[in-house]
Amino acid sequence: MHILVLGAAGMVGRKLVERLLRDGQLGNREITRMTLQDVVTPAKPLDASIAISLVTSDFADPASAAPLLTHRPDVIFHLAAIVSGEAEAEFDKGYRINLDGTRHLIDAIRAVGGGYKPRLVFTSSIAVFGAPFPEKIGDEFFHTPLTSYGTQKSICELLIADYTRKGFMDGVGIRLPTICVRPGKPNKAASGFFSNIMREPLAGVEAVLPVGDDVRHWHASPRSAVGFLLHAATMDTAAMGARRNLSMPGLSVTVGEQIAALERVAGKSVTARIRREPDPVIMGIVSGWPRDFVTDRALQLGFTTAEKTFDDIIRIHIEDELDGKFVA
Amino acid sequence: MHILVLGAAGMVGRKLVERLLRDGQLGNREITRMTLQDVVTPAKPLDASIAISLVTSDFADPASAAPLLTHRPDVIFHLAAIVSGEAEAEFDKGYRINLDGTRHLIDAIRAVGGGYKPRLVFTSSIAVFGAPFPEKIGDEFFHTPLTSYGTQKSICELLIADYTRKGFMDGVGIRLPTICVRPGKPNKAASGFFSNIMREPLAGVEAVLPVGDDVRHWHASPRSAVGFLLHAATMDTAAMGARRNLSMPGLSVTVGEQIAALERVAGKSVTARIRREPDPVIMGIVSGWPRDFVTDRALQLGFTTAEKTFDDIIRIHIEDELDGKFVA
Repeated sequence: MHILVLGAAGMVGRKLVERLLRDGQLGNREITRMTLQDVVTPAKPLDASIAISLVTSDFADPASAAPLLTHRPDVIFHLAAIVSGEAEAEFDKGYRINLDGTRHLIDAIRAVGGGYKPRLVFTSSIAVFGAPFPEKIGDEFFHTPLTSYGTQKSICELLIADYTRKGFMDGVGIRLPTICVRPGKPNKAASGFFSNIMREPLAGVEAVLPVGDDVRHWHASPRSAVGFLLHAATMDTAAMGARRNLSMPGLSVTVGEQIAALERVAGKSVTARIRREPDPVIMGIVSGWPRDFVTDRALQLGFTTAEKTFDDIIRIHIEDELDGKFVA
Repeated sequence: MHILVLGAAGMVGRKLVERLLRDGQLGNREITRMTLQDVVTPAKPLDASIAISLVTSDFADPASAAPLLTHRPDVIFHLAAIVSGEAEAEFDKGYRINLDGTRHLIDAIRAVGGGYKPRLVFTSSIAVFGAPFPEKIGDEFFHTPLTSYGTQKSICELLIADYTRKGFMDGVGIRLPTICVRPGKPNKAASGFFSNIMREPLAGVEAVLPVGDDVRHWHASPRSAVGFLLHAATMDTAAMGARRNLSMPGLSVTVGEQIAALERVAGKSVTARIRREPDPVIMGIVSGWPRDFVTDRALQLGFTTAEKTFDDIIRIHIEDELDGKFVA
């Protein structure tokens, strides 16, 4: 089978590709070819025994979609997007990439014709929800995004459901929780601290906590995110009916619970590297974010997380990113 | 003040223009100029004492929006759309007009600049909701449209909320109930019979009822629809917060209750002109439609209907369309 990954150079994309190559198959079908696309050239996986094409292209370019479909990929993972902060700061760019790019893609899929109907797995976001919302957001709660990014994701969900209903493709949209612990360097995203206060202390580095310990948020590990993507690519979509988009399971914990978990897993010397430095701006932004979900539908459809507790999330980070070692 | 009506030649558009000219003002401000646009030339209102420009243009043409904004209309009523059946049958045309057209419009508004921030009133639809849904659909129920038309309306709602949030305009989207009694000739819309079985018998003509008497649906009179539009154009939108789209009030009645109302208002000789001829196809389509709503939010924001009962809906039709007379 042939798999196309759009946005393959991003954090989740890289981990997905790694996992697909390790498994060698998807849903009991052998993977024979992969196409990896991103706006920067994705890294060529080492020692891959199958044909891998790397494509560097602007996802928003109307001409970029059709060539990616020449070999009729069976499964398309659509992870291509600019992030929330950038979409908010650069209005036109956000709509161009996050909305128009998706539309070019699905129109190109439709244009292939001849019964071509690939599985399209789209990463949506909990940013489709905007405050005020209930303490736990259910599967039938409405979308009132408070960012352009959330608006664009919500629109793509609607498009994917309609194009699927019309028989042009077999689409599934999954709303990922905040990914934690996010590997790599600290970034300027307002949500960055949720990962920073775990990752940096484990690396022996100090991290700043800009909000109170009582701030509650919704998390899943990178390993879980990849698991969601694989399940979305292989599940029987008939069970979804016309409702093709859904919130993924996750863990709802407070920052205080995160820190307590870090202390259990790594000790007090590690949590001592967290410096509390309240930032009213970040506190304001975070107060408008979802805190908890009821994801019965995803659970019924077989989506599962790799972690039962936040301790597991930290252990997964130590295993997958730190070779089992941290700076005590 | 200058008012622009897009889709002015449609049924609701004509009634809106008539009412605006009769009132001579909107929200206590004198109307000094109107621009009426449609894909067919709107009828020139007779005896109008103000400047009225008629524009015939394709709403989906990217070049058509900017010229409509030359005189910076203070209020824009956006009623331009192709209907549900057509959008379903002609996929590309539906997206072109119902989605791209709206985007060209709001991008043209944004491009005017210089603090221009008109009130945009957009007619959305209860087609944004798709079965299964609760017996009464509340203000926070999610959008899972089962038609391309409903998808397009839902996307436009999201765009209008985002463009408003960014300060590019002052948008309000209102989801109209099915308009009943719809004047004019019977049409082929699956929903046509709700009006046909009232309008035709009152005109001395037989009408076919293709569904059972127990079918429940959600209605408002044309007079109410115009009232909603005027209120949306003049209300204090600050009270809406970021949630700029909402379901309008209406009446939930069964077909049996419609017929009983017709008998009370016009007598048995009129209802005798309804011929029951069940049509499994139409019964199937209608079974997926919303039946009832809780519209607390609209009521709190001051939206009101012109009718308290379905008897009133019939009386409004007799008054507004039949000069107070019907064929007994």
